[in-house]
Amino acid sequence: MSDAPAAPLPTDRFIVGVDLGGTNLVVGALSVDGSRQFGMHSIPTRADLGADGVVERIVQLIERVIAETMAATGYSRTQCLGVGIGSPGPLDRERGMVIFTPNLGWRDFPLRDRVQDGVKLPASLDNDANCATLGEWWLGAARGGRNVVGLTIGTGIGGGLILDGRLYHGASDVAGEIGHSTIDSIGRRCGCGNYGCLEAYASGPAIADRAREALVGGEPSTMPTLVGGDLGRLTAAVVYDAAKQGDRLAIEVVRETARFLGTGVANLLNIFNPDVVVLAGGVTQAGDALFEPMRAEVRRRAFKPAVDACRIVPGILPNAGVIGAVATFAQRQGLM
Amino acid sequence: MSDAPAAPLPTDRFIVGVDLGGTNLVVGALSVDGSRQFGMHSIPTRADLGADGVVERIVQLIERVIAETMAATGYSRTQCLGVGIGSPGPLDRERGMVIFTPNLGWRDFPLRDRVQDGVKLPASLDNDANCATLGEWWLGAARGGRNVVGLTIGTGIGGGLILDGRLYHGASDVAGEIGHSTIDSIGRRCGCGNYGCLEAYASGPAIADRAREALVGGEPSTMPTLVGGDLGRLTAAVVYDAAKQGDRLAIEVVRETARFLGTGVANLLNIFNPDVVVLAGGVTQAGDALFEPMRAEVRRRAFKPAVDACRIVPGILPNAGVIGAVATFAQRQGLM
Repeated sequence: MSDAPAAPLPTDRFIVGVDLGGTNLVVGALSVDGSRQFGMHSIPTRADLGADGVVERIVQLIERVIAETMAATGYSRTQCLGVGIGSPGPLDRERGMVIFTPNLGWRDFPLRDRVQDGVKLPASLDNDANCATLGEWWLGAARGGRNVVGLTIGTGIGGGLILDGRLYHGASDVAGEIGHSTIDSIGRRCGCGNYGCLEAYASGPAIADRAREALVGGEPSTMPTLVGGDLGRLTAAVVYDAAKQGDRLAIEVVRETARFLGTGVANLLNIFNPDVVVLAGGVTQAGDALFEPMRAEVRRRAFKPAVDACRIVPGILPNAGVIGAVATFAQRQGLM
Repeated sequence: MSDAPAAPLPTDRFIVGVDLGGTNLVVGALSVDGSRQFGMHSIPTRADLGADGVVERIVQLIERVIAETMAATGYSRTQCLGVGIGSPGPLDRERGMVIFTPNLGWRDFPLRDRVQDGVKLPASLDNDANCATLGEWWLGAARGGRNVVGLTIGTGIGGGLILDGRLYHGASDVAGEIGHSTIDSIGRRCGCGNYGCLEAYASGPAIADRAREALVGGEPSTMPTLVGGDLGRLTAAVVYDAAKQGDRLAIEVVRETARFLGTGVANLLNIFNPDVVVLAGGVTQAGDALFEPMRAEVRRRAFKPAVDACRIVPGILPNAGVIGAVATFAQRQGLM
């Protein structure tokens, strides 16, 4: 966030936001004041194409969104100020580099400059979960929060921190890797190489893994039928569907997920004492079935003054990552 | 930290600092510029005397330190600006209340006002571990750090956070309760009522408990001899002595302690990305025997950019808590 005094936000300029996920790539544009949204197209990331292939898809989608925005508004291309990119991390923001992403398989990749070269517009890079948190703080469920923790739970678990009203990056842009905090020091193996990370219990793939393990153990469940007998097709979404239909094993898997998330969130409450924790991403779509037992676990584990000070809410923006990517670009340019 | 411009720090004024621990109570005084120290007397806290009895001991020791400072300097009592108190938490800083301390057994106790009434000087209250962290940042091992995490490991495990150069308190003054972050969600029972808190593994009493459990299991060791056969007298200090003398079981207990602490510190690196982690308190007196395997565990568990950005160091101030309590008072008065 810039220390420069904020100028009035122009409505006749727009910024493109890119939300690069392990599974999907979403691109949209917002007027700088946040009042108008354009595009918001989602396509598969296709990590299998490699970094070059993914960059090509990003650039094509940005061009499409710029064209659509111009068509919808009558603006010229010069009214597009640039591109904010949210990417899985860790990153080096200053150099615009992706240092490492387990879910895309990239190392030391100059994502910002590659996109910048492709679209001939200035670009900025920030962590995807930082962007999602900033999006919910700017226009979503965490609006008005002073100390905000955001968790984005999908293929992985990302985290973002807004402390004393500012996006907090830490000493080397790694801050907020909450998915890789240990909740069980001798626990499940994580994609990052460690054991017992929160992500190894409560990400989408981890939920599917835990359900599969319980099924292999022979517990009765409708889940095998829902995937036509092929447990390889089991996903968190299938677990949630089965739970909604009353499948006891699936319900227990969801409750366990809530307890694991509640443990991670309680740690954040005891360490950060935030006024808002906002959780978003596919895994949170279980709604109250997840949030109620999660809040109960947090109450069990966190100090009461921390619990009392904090609301734990689902994200409300379908495209928080894109919106936050726009906000990070605007902030780096001193526009907000 | 005050936003007001810092005035030149007077050398001819002094502030008394109180470091209230579960076991010992330490009181000293510093000139406001930090250049001179007086007193630094440590007496047993005597929590068994109840809150009133402990307050009486605090007030008596403050009076003694003020008298000694006046005698040593020729200053008058009016040159004593006030008293900074560091206390176990959680606290309500604004109201000067101790909300709850498991180790002293207090609830909703107006510590600041009781001390203020006793010595007839303005007082401020902050978390003991916040004070210790601020002390190491002001005059000790964390000097120059921008994002600092401090851990004080003794009877309990306290934590303090300095983020972007400011002591961070969170939404309701609970921030930094790192000892009560879960490292094993179905793990050891903690004094706070939860399971698997870092404190339940690596505080002084937890180290003694783990050693005792291993001994009851029948493992050969010199430790029973060191305590005259009475395992109730086993402390972390005894474990450390035995480890220094080459006792294999004691060495393993120290290594395990390092792994548990390393897990907690790795979580802090992945979440906060600090440039300094400073660890102090009795448990850290094992020195390299503890710090080397702890750093190794951190390297195993934390993201490399976070590891590379951070030095993990022992505290160097024998009375960081007192020094930091003075600093919190000075900051609240806008003096620094």
